[in-house]
Amino acid sequence: MPAPAIAAGIAHGGRLIEARRRFPSAPQPFLDLSTGINPHPYPLAPIDPARLARLPEPEELSRLQAVAARAYGVADPDMVVATPGTQIAISLLPHLLGCSRAVILSPTYAEHAAAWRHAGRPVEAAAGLEAFERGAMLPGTAAVLCNPNNPDGARSDRVRLLALAAGLARQGGVLICDEAFLDLEPDMASLGTALPHPGLLVLRSFGKTYGLAGIRLGFVLASPGLAGRLRSAFGPWAIGGLAIEAGCAALADEAWRAGMAERLLGDGAELDRLLLRYGWRSRGGTALFRLYQVRQATRLYAHLGEAGVLVRRFEHQPDLLRLGLPGDSGGWARLEGALATAALS
Amino acid sequence: MPAPAIAAGIAHGGRLIEARRRFPSAPQPFLDLSTGINPHPYPLAPIDPARLARLPEPEELSRLQAVAARAYGVADPDMVVATPGTQIAISLLPHLLGCSRAVILSPTYAEHAAAWRHAGRPVEAAAGLEAFERGAMLPGTAAVLCNPNNPDGARSDRVRLLALAAGLARQGGVLICDEAFLDLEPDMASLGTALPHPGLLVLRSFGKTYGLAGIRLGFVLASPGLAGRLRSAFGPWAIGGLAIEAGCAALADEAWRAGMAERLLGDGAELDRLLLRYGWRSRGGTALFRLYQVRQATRLYAHLGEAGVLVRRFEHQPDLLRLGLPGDSGGWARLEGALATAALS
Repeated sequence: MPAPAIAAGIAHGGRLIEARRRFPSAPQPFLDLSTGINPHPYPLAPIDPARLARLPEPEELSRLQAVAARAYGVADPDMVVATPGTQIAISLLPHLLGCSRAVILSPTYAEHAAAWRHAGRPVEAAAGLEAFERGAMLPGTAAVLCNPNNPDGARSDRVRLLALAAGLARQGGVLICDEAFLDLEPDMASLGTALPHPGLLVLRSFGKTYGLAGIRLGFVLASPGLAGRLRSAFGPWAIGGLAIEAGCAALADEAWRAGMAERLLGDGAELDRLLLRYGWRSRGGTALFRLYQVRQATRLYAHLGEAGVLVRRFEHQPDLLRLGLPGDSGGWARLEGALATAALS
Repeated sequence: MPAPAIAAGIAHGGRLIEARRRFPSAPQPFLDLSTGINPHPYPLAPIDPARLARLPEPEELSRLQAVAARAYGVADPDMVVATPGTQIAISLLPHLLGCSRAVILSPTYAEHAAAWRHAGRPVEAAAGLEAFERGAMLPGTAAVLCNPNNPDGARSDRVRLLALAAGLARQGGVLICDEAFLDLEPDMASLGTALPHPGLLVLRSFGKTYGLAGIRLGFVLASPGLAGRLRSAFGPWAIGGLAIEAGCAALADEAWRAGMAERLLGDGAELDRLLLRYGWRSRGGTALFRLYQVRQATRLYAHLGEAGVLVRRFEHQPDLLRLGLPGDSGGWARLEGALATAALS
């Protein structure tokens, strides 16, 4: 297999360097609404240089596992595996689990399918929960979904998912539930609370919720046996001291998370109202992004880009645009201004 | 397999929390000579908070690969895979390479054997290069060595290693050459310059050389095809922007590295002289640590620990102690004082 060209592969948000090439006369810096990362980062303590110089100690990692277990409602810290971001877990799980194929509730975050294909495992895209359940009936299947889903925020029924996980367990399979965008949904319960479970693995993202995606921290939640095997596969220092410190502080701060969920709920409703004035129809979303069906989406994507406002488009769904939330009044004003001039042009 | 207890597993240096339990009345902070991490960190630019908030972009990772290729004498940036530390590569390679068994030039860094065993691959420990070459003759073998070796600094002959890699390639095997401690050895050439090579994979460590182990950055060097597969397996954001920025700055700074190599060479000679006065006999080492054969090593380990000076001991070689280098005159004075009182006691 040849090495992929760097800039190729799956389209993602947050590509500011590419955006500068695409929209060379846009005012800088861009207002980047192309990601689902919280624009309000958790306030970190000043960084101790020793954190960067030395390796973290096992006791520190152990503490993070305990804090994460409490934050995620998982009964036992041994069921928590801290990883340098959720993405590396998504990419590696096909190599580390014993599954021979994957069925993926689709459309969804494209890196799941890419990871299973890279690992040489056939991938079935299932449209809808029934097709997903049917596709999961073959032995040795990894059944993968995002809950809530990206980009439409669709939610899958917990009872049906747990029944599916039980069925998968009987056939050497596993349900992989990517809850990257669940933290800030006030009325959603994690499947992680059902652990230990022989057919269930849950992914939790730290960087999106806490606006610290660059720190690279994520979690796999799984039964102690599987979690232990994954910890061994990632080795003793998969994450550094900065990620451990940030994780311990932020995950223990339930008040911050609850306040942020409320704030973003209001911001998301405000975004829906603003865009509805321009005829954008809400197609769902989460606390960190909203999806819209838009007439002339391609033209609007380009117009907003020229105005320095980056939004997320989807190659195979050209009438949809996804927007993250502006982080301050200046951002809101820029978005509104760009929408107003687009409507006139 | 049950989850391992956190504090169990392979003994490593740098365990300051454990040391405080073991030596509760030692003066704090410890002088930690138990690791092979450079005590003089590369001077980083102030950290831009945006680095922690956003994900790095592919162009930034591409630039790091190019800088690393130049620094490591590798012809093509496509042969460079940046990982969150070398350890995660050591732990994952048994799962990602197609090898069915490992032979390891031993004794050496214990995580190599542990990783292959965790992945369910039989491990043969080879004492000496000839046994290593013989052990590598079975099809599908991963032949693993550290060059220079940890803890004794032993060096393996480049011509023989390249011949071995060629033989391994013919049988679906690979030579894994861990050059974690090669950067600061002025007269050693990396096997990486022989890439592309169908039977060779080289590991390079960033954190040890540049005193930034907590940043978690390391590199796998391999032929473009294998490197591309490994990049896919690690996914697009295995390392964060801080590691990319630090790597780009430090790896491009050849003058710093050359000056540091000279400084540490002098410090290592000074350490040998100091310890020889107390009867410690040098058993080799590298620019970042020295190994000594010591009478009453167990008693001296404990005495130094009580005095707040941590050194590295080895469970199965109780007459050996390994010391990193003090970073400042205060550290040298503490070490000398602790040695003097130990000699009197």
